[in-house]
Amino acid sequence: MFDAAVIGGGPAGLSAAVNLKLLAKSVLWFGSPHGSDKVEKSEKIANYPGLGLLSGAELNRRFREHAAAMALEPVDRMVTLIAQTDEGFQLLADNELYEAKSILLATGAVTAKGFEGEAEYLGRGVSYCATCDGFLYRGKTIAVHLGAARFEHEAAYLAGLAAKVYLFAGYRDCAVRGENIEMPDSPIVKVSGGLKANAVVLRDGREIPVDGLFCLRNAVAPASLVPGLALDGVHIAVDREMKTNLAGCYAAGDCTGRPYQIAKAVGEGNIAAHAMAAYLAERK
Amino acid sequence: MFDAAVIGGGPAGLSAAVNLKLLAKSVLWFGSPHGSDKVEKSEKIANYPGLGLLSGAELNRRFREHAAAMALEPVDRMVTLIAQTDEGFQLLADNELYEAKSILLATGAVTAKGFEGEAEYLGRGVSYCATCDGFLYRGKTIAVHLGAARFEHEAAYLAGLAAKVYLFAGYRDCAVRGENIEMPDSPIVKVSGGLKANAVVLRDGREIPVDGLFCLRNAVAPASLVPGLALDGVHIAVDREMKTNLAGCYAAGDCTGRPYQIAKAVGEGNIAAHAMAAYLAERK
Repeated sequence: MFDAAVIGGGPAGLSAAVNLKLLAKSVLWFGSPHGSDKVEKSEKIANYPGLGLLSGAELNRRFREHAAAMALEPVDRMVTLIAQTDEGFQLLADNELYEAKSILLATGAVTAKGFEGEAEYLGRGVSYCATCDGFLYRGKTIAVHLGAARFEHEAAYLAGLAAKVYLFAGYRDCAVRGENIEMPDSPIVKVSGGLKANAVVLRDGREIPVDGLFCLRNAVAPASLVPGLALDGVHIAVDREMKTNLAGCYAAGDCTGRPYQIAKAVGEGNIAAHAMAAYLAERK
Repeated sequence: MFDAAVIGGGPAGLSAAVNLKLLAKSVLWFGSPHGSDKVEKSEKIANYPGLGLLSGAELNRRFREHAAAMALEPVDRMVTLIAQTDEGFQLLADNELYEAKSILLATGAVTAKGFEGEAEYLGRGVSYCATCDGFLYRGKTIAVHLGAARFEHEAAYLAGLAAKVYLFAGYRDCAVRGENIEMPDSPIVKVSGGLKANAVVLRDGREIPVDGLFCLRNAVAPASLVPGLALDGVHIAVDREMKTNLAGCYAAGDCTGRPYQIAKAVGEGNIAAHAMAAYLAERK
């Protein structure tokens, strides 16, 4: 069992992982090897003190280098469910189970609450993990929602299995192409069905029959991720120590609210790591 | 009248000043041209994300360069009193009066509460400003407490005016020397006197008769600086937006509490700047 699990590879997650490691805690860090999509795509950053004016890509590179220099390698799996136990937390990531005494949610700003019906049909036609559940849809018709370019290879993988893929990209210039791939020009708003999901409804009113829907996003909405987590509006409610309402569960960065700023995220990750170390010391 | 006054040249103050300027606010920034003494003296810093492992001196240099690149030049005066007015705040710094609609206290960790009797004799034998009050002690005997090396030139200036100086340095390797300078090996614990201060009492029990005491420190204790400011223990009480109990008055960095970390200070300065900009927008 790890001392701490950090969910999120952006500035808040990195800052927390770095500090937890320096505080001699065993850290399980979930994130993309590419760092933060959001930082990467920032054209210019002028307010990260000490680095002057630089591109987001440059800052993201520096963040990755910092992690690498400290031998911190993020586990590139998406955490889809976290359950509190007597000993701490169990985390489900791409169908693997992990355990940690404390957790930090650094999952970024929640830009989507999920589609109508999505939570209801999760596990019954809706999946968050292409490599876990893709085989179930061999030769079938599926819809795939891509939240970020980093999931394009998963969409390509699914297109290799399914007979037909309706692909919906939540960003510009999606590069996935294929003979069995169709990209409707209206986004998904709803999942519908009976006992199982059997169609996606688009904003323009069209209903497309599918056998399943894959939602490939950077993060699951926090309240779906951790049952019982208290929110403040769409953000995770935290105190000045970045504590949530659940003992041992902390949050940092954009998921705790505005301003959505890199320096704020880094600062909150730092605070959370110190609070988690204090929590672990008390818990012994 | 400035939109915002930032008191403190360390990481929190820098972060706030940078953000306020980017948010198109007029900023009056008080700090040392040398940046942060505390950062400068850190041997190695490993947890400022994006910069890997570096010395405090190197990070402090980068902070100064960032400010310079944004044409942010700190006013090297010590703010000793702040009063709230109908329009905002009046700030007294080395006997100059400044005005701002909002203020940020980024004064660092309070390591000293001041000596016993210090607040009582302020203006009656106790001074915080060598260049303001030095002339009052021409040919007299004074005690000088130095909180940091950056005030050594002020001690030298006072030694040029006074007949005799008892010098007490709150740090190692004080470089000030002079024929009329004596450095007792026990620190000041108390200021005593009648209507005016007339002696300093040392920890070893000695009482040294003096005409005045200069306390040259990086910061005045927050509660002395801003009358009515609510504290939480020795720290300034703030909410998640870095708001204090006084409208328009914000705080960030070590003065708001632990962990005393650079990333935390930078993050809080960022949050405070955004909250101040929102406050200024509402106030119009």
